[in-house]
Parts: sequence; C-alpha cells; structure tokens
Amino acid sequence: MATQGQVITCKAAVAYEPNKPLVIEDVQVAPPQAGEVRIKILYTALCHTDAYTWSGKDPEGLFPCILGHEAAGIVESVGEGVTEVQPGDHVIPCYQAECRECKFCKSGKTNLCGKVRSATGVGIMMNDRKTRFSVNGKPIYHFMGTSTFSQYTVVHDVSVAKIDPEAPLDKVCLLGCGVPTGLGAVWNTAKVEPGSNVAIFGLGTVGLAVAEGAKTAGASRIIGIDIDSKKYETAKKFGVNEFVNPKEHDKPIQEVIVDLTDGGVDYSFECIGNVSVMRAALECCHKGWGTSVIVGVAASGQEISTRPFQLVTGRVWKGTAFGGFKSRTQVPWLVEKYMNKEIKVDEYITHNLSLGEINKAFDLLHEGGCLRCVLSTSE
Amino acid sequence: MATQGQVITCKAAVAYEPNKPLVIEDVQVAPPQAGEVRIKILYTALCHTDAYTWSGKDPEGLFPCILGHEAAGIVESVGEGVTEVQPGDHVIPCYQAECRECKFCKSGKTNLCGKVRSATGVGIMMNDRKTRFSVNGKPIYHFMGTSTFSQYTVVHDVSVAKIDPEAPLDKVCLLGCGVPTGLGAVWNTAKVEPGSNVAIFGLGTVGLAVAEGAKTAGASRIIGIDIDSKKYETAKKFGVNEFVNPKEHDKPIQEVIVDLTDGGVDYSFECIGNVSVMRAALECCHKGWGTSVIVGVAASGQEISTRPFQLVTGRVWKGTAFGGFKSRTQVPWLVEKYMNKEIKVDEYITHNLSLGEINKAFDLLHEGGCLRCVLSTSE
Repeated sequence: MATQGQVITCKAAVAYEPNKPLVIEDVQVAPPQAGEVRIKILYTALCHTDAYTWSGKDPEGLFPCILGHEAAGIVESVGEGVTEVQPGDHVIPCYQAECRECKFCKSGKTNLCGKVRSATGVGIMMNDRKTRFSVNGKPIYHFMGTSTFSQYTVVHDVSVAKIDPEAPLDKVCLLGCGVPTGLGAVWNTAKVEPGSNVAIFGLGTVGLAVAEGAKTAGASRIIGIDIDSKKYETAKKFGVNEFVNPKEHDKPIQEVIVDLTDGGVDYSFECIGNVSVMRAALECCHKGWGTSVIVGVAASGQEISTRPFQLVTGRVWKGTAFGGFKSRTQVPWLVEKYMNKEIKVDEYITHNLSLGEINKAFDLLHEGGCLRCVLSTSE
Repeated sequence: MATQGQVITCKAAVAYEPNKPLVIEDVQVAPPQAGEVRIKILYTALCHTDAYTWSGKDPEGLFPCILGHEAAGIVESVGEGVTEVQPGDHVIPCYQAECRECKFCKSGKTNLCGKVRSATGVGIMMNDRKTRFSVNGKPIYHFMGTSTFSQYTVVHDVSVAKIDPEAPLDKVCLLGCGVPTGLGAVWNTAKVEPGSNVAIFGLGTVGLAVAEGAKTAGASRIIGIDIDSKKYETAKKFGVNEFVNPKEHDKPIQEVIVDLTDGGVDYSFECIGNVSVMRAALECCHKGWGTSVIVGVAASGQEISTRPFQLVTGRVWKGTAFGGFKSRTQVPWLVEKYMNKEIKVDEYITHNLSLGEINKAFDLLHEGGCLRCVLSTSE
C-alpha cells in the first residue's frame, strides 16, 4: 500500500486524563517495526475494562493513551520478520498474545502467553520500548497491546488473529474480548458437563456468553442472577431458564441459590467484578464438587475472602482470562463457529455509533439496556 | 461374645470441660442399635483435631465427650441389619463415612458422604438421636462419629472399614486420619504429575504424608517449608528434597518460593491450618496453572483471602478432607499398600503410651519432635 513505511496520520480517541472526555485527535501512527503489524481498524466495541482504566481507578493505567481492545480490521503493513499475516488480511487484535514459544504457551495448561507482557503492561512496544502513537511529537501510550480506538493501530505479531475474510468485521469484532471470555469460562475453565446446574452472576455481555456456553454444554438449569429484573427477557434468548433478583430476597444470595438447588449449583460464574459477589458465587456451589469461576475483573487492591471450610468441603475456586482461549489459534475458530451459526454474536450488539461519538458510547455502557456498542471508525 | 447385647463398662478418657485434663473413667457403653457397630479399640493415636476441640476453640465442640478419631480395633458386636462386618473383624473406624447410597457417594466426585453427618456433627447416633456412652447414667457425647479414646466405642456401620486381619493394629491405626489425608491430597485432590514442583507448608504428619505422596507421584522438586529447621532431617526420609525456613527470610514466603522456582510451584499444600499460610501457599503457585490445596483445618471463624487476580491469572484454590479417599472402600486398600511396603506408616510413630497417659500424649503433640503418639488401650 502507499502508506507502507510511512507515518499515518489518522483519527483516534485519545484519553488525556482519567475521567475526562476522550478527544478525537489527529494522531501520528508510526510504521510497524520488526515483529509488529499495523492494522486499519474498521470496527471497535467498548468493554468495561476500557471504562475502568479511563475512570482512573486502575493504578496501572497510563495517560495519555488510546484505549480499546475489542475490534476488527485489515492489516495495512507488517514489520520485518512478520510471516503469519500480510497486508490485506482480515484480523482481530488480541490483548492476550499467543507466541507458541514461551513456557506458558508450551505448557498446554494456560493461554496466558508471557512474550510481550513486559511491554503491553506499560503501554509500549517490545522492539524499542517506545510507543508508535504520537500527537505533534508527544508520545501516546498503547493500551492492552491493542489500542483499537483509532483508525490505525500497531500491535505485536503474536497478538494478531487472522480470520476468514468473509466474516463481517462489524460483528466479529466482538470476538476480541467479551464473548470468548464467557464461552471459554464454561468450555475451557469450568468444563461444564451435560445436566449440570449453573449460576451466573451478572447478565451483561460476558454473563450472557456464559449462559450460551452453558446451554451448548448441555447444562439443564441455567440460573441468571442480576439486580435488574428487566435483563431476564434478553437472557432467556441466551439460555438462562431461571432468574433470581437478589434485591427481592432478605437472605444472602448464596443461601437463596443453595435452597433453590437442593444444596447448591455445580458451577457458578462471577461476571461482574465485585468481590462480595465472588464470595457469594463460591458459597452457592454444591458441597463436594461445586466449582466457581471468577470471570469479572475486580478493582485494584480489592480482595476476595471466604472460610477455608468452603474449600476443604470440596468447592473449587478458579478464574479465567479471555476464557482460556489461545488467541491466535482459537479466535479464528470462534469466527468459523459464528459463520456456521453455532454461536451468537449479532445478538449482543445493541448500539452502533461512530468513533466520533465515543463519549456517548461510554455513557451507554453504564445503562442497563446496552450490551455492546460497536463503533465504526470511518468518518 | 459374652458381652453381646450387654452394656459394657470399660475405661475411657472423658473430656468433661474444655482445656481441663481428660479423666480416665469407668464408662458404660450401650450395645449397638440397628445399623451400628461396637468396636473394641486396641490402639488409638492423637491428632490435632482432637486437641483443637479439647481446647474449647471449636464452637461445635460438645462436652462432656470422648474424643479420638485415629484408631484400630476389633468388632465386638453388631446391631440389627449390619451385614458388612461381624464380630471378630479387624476394623478402622472412619470419621468420614461412606454409605454408597447418598448423592455425595453416588456422585463419583467426592468422598463427603452425608448419611450420618446430622448425628455425628452433634455427638449422637442416628437411630435414636442419643449417645451410647454414659457415666453413672449421665450421657457422654460422641466425637466425629468415632470416639476412640475408649476401650469400646459404638459407631455407625457406614463408618467402619474392614481391614486385613494380619495388619498390625498398633501401626495401621494411623490410616484413620493423618496419613491418608496427606497422601490423598496429592493423589486424589491435586493429582500431581511426574516432574512437578511441589511446596509443602508444615512438616507434621500430614505434611510428611504429602511429601511421600508427591514422591510416589514422581514430583521432582519437593520443597518443605517449616519454621522449625530441625524438621528437615526427618522430612528427607519422606521425600522432601529442599527446605525453606520462612524465619530466615525477610521477604514474604510466597516471594521466596516464587524466586526459587522461576515463577512458582505447580502444586502447593497447606498442612498447618493457618489462614495466612493458606494465602502464601496459593500465591507461591505458578501463574497459569498452579494449584493450591488446603489440607490443614483453620480455627473457626477465620477467613482466607487473596486478590482475585491470583485466580484470574490461572491459579486454582482447592481443599481436601480425608484426602478425598472413600473411607470404607479405600482405607482397606491403604492397609494393603502398607502391608506391601508401598507406603510408610511406622515411620510416623514417634511415641507409644497407654490410654492412662493420654494427658501426657496431648502435651507431646505440641512438641516439635512428636509426629504421632499411639496409645494402647490395654491396662
């Protein structure tokens, strides 16, 4: 392409300060260096992790930065040594890398590749420990190794999943975070068996994806728990077949669920990020075998607690990140499942806006009726 | 036997009040009712759970009672409907029952049989919700469904493991609690694989059994952690091949272990019952796959805590009770393994005393040099 090797000036939403509206700016995006890929982002969705860092509550949040980590686009150019993608490939940037070489990737036990974390954790690229974004010469930090709130971004090659070019990018962008997280929590982390009873705390996008995962795994009772009873109607479409609103009960929610299920559920999932709910999710599990998976991300510094008796009597406490999916290998597989109508994606999209309306999109994120808002980056 | 159907008067150590010396008394032991077994206890060991309840710190402890739950003996008589054991059978009473009928037993997922818990939890027998022990007509509570600090005891038939009559009862009595707990934590709960790195917090009987279990499972590094460095010499015989004394380090012990193992261990075991150590045991596990098993029993009301990030990044927190062994089925199998010299038992016995010396035995339990003290009940 004509832009290859050149700095690209494009629009991006820059977070200059915590909790201040993002600013749509002309941003300079440097060419990809060795092992890097520059992607033209076509669609990006918003996720609660973006909002959390933007709020300033994340002590590791760096400003100014370009947020965004759930997106899809087309490779514009690649740096030296990049062999697995080339310009024109349709891709989903993955905040969880997969290098296939580090001890995590080789373990066969986890998806938590460690190859580029030392850079992505501090908003820079591995090659020169610098950023590829700048505004008038002042560097802008990367975020989660993806920074998708921009018409162009640069990511490490180990963070790029090449997908079916037929897949609609305005839909499959969701396979960059929330939907895989929920599905994988069920399929990879909990390994729910047919006939299981499942409790899902929080019926946002991730909770609904857990419900769909549980349904496809053959769970019989799928109990949705949310303080907003209006969410039950939508949740039914994803597989939730019972609903409990903790506000309608005087007893602690774990007791309500234990009573409802003759001793507790086989599997529970916390999809909110609230440490008290994480405790309830563990304690509503059945003695002897109940497994609770933490899917939500709690605010920094918060702690979970319980009596050790809960674990000694057979409950298991786990967590999941990106649903345990190996990103470069399995995101394309999830796209195929979507293309074959085996998993839902369209149904999570409640709003469509443009990148210029991103501040409105952040407001929507806090409204009960919004699951996913997809932003088009075209002007 | 001549005693069948009769009340037996025999010696027992009665705990009349918390934290007061046990009293060797003439106790009346009623005949077994339907589904019950009266056992002549020949040998009983002491375990920390006995000491915990005796101390008065256990809010569920009932007094007066007859403590003891790690023992071996011979069936004296059986109640109506008891078919699996008969007078003369050599047996180990099991505080964890196995009825093979309840939903726990049938689940295939846990050893936590629930059949007699509603009685054993409150010091009585299921049949008439009363005790079989009395002194001058005043009832004495059972303890853990076993009450082995007595020349005779009555237990539920689902709590009796029939063993090889050739097995030396003064040794295999230990297979009633501590040794199976440690072995099973490794074999059943953690399922340690060959080549794993293992950290064991606390090198008492249970910790040493964990070490032996890890060694037989093929673990390569078996790191013992104890505040008493003298324990390393003994621990080597059980498989511990590295030792860390937290008192010799300024850093938190979890950091010491993470540094020592290039990121953390594959499996850790807390064998003390200290909630701070439980946290350290979790946090010294390797990101992505490390599994921590709580084996020790914490004091009532105490809580464990950690940052949820520990679980979200792939660590798993579990617990175990009686090592996950199905008692009636697997205690006889453990006895066979001992008879075939496949597991150690003799090596845990550091002291032999008589039932009349039980208060001295409790004192010994708090001394570093004592692993297990076996009491003979003969006068």
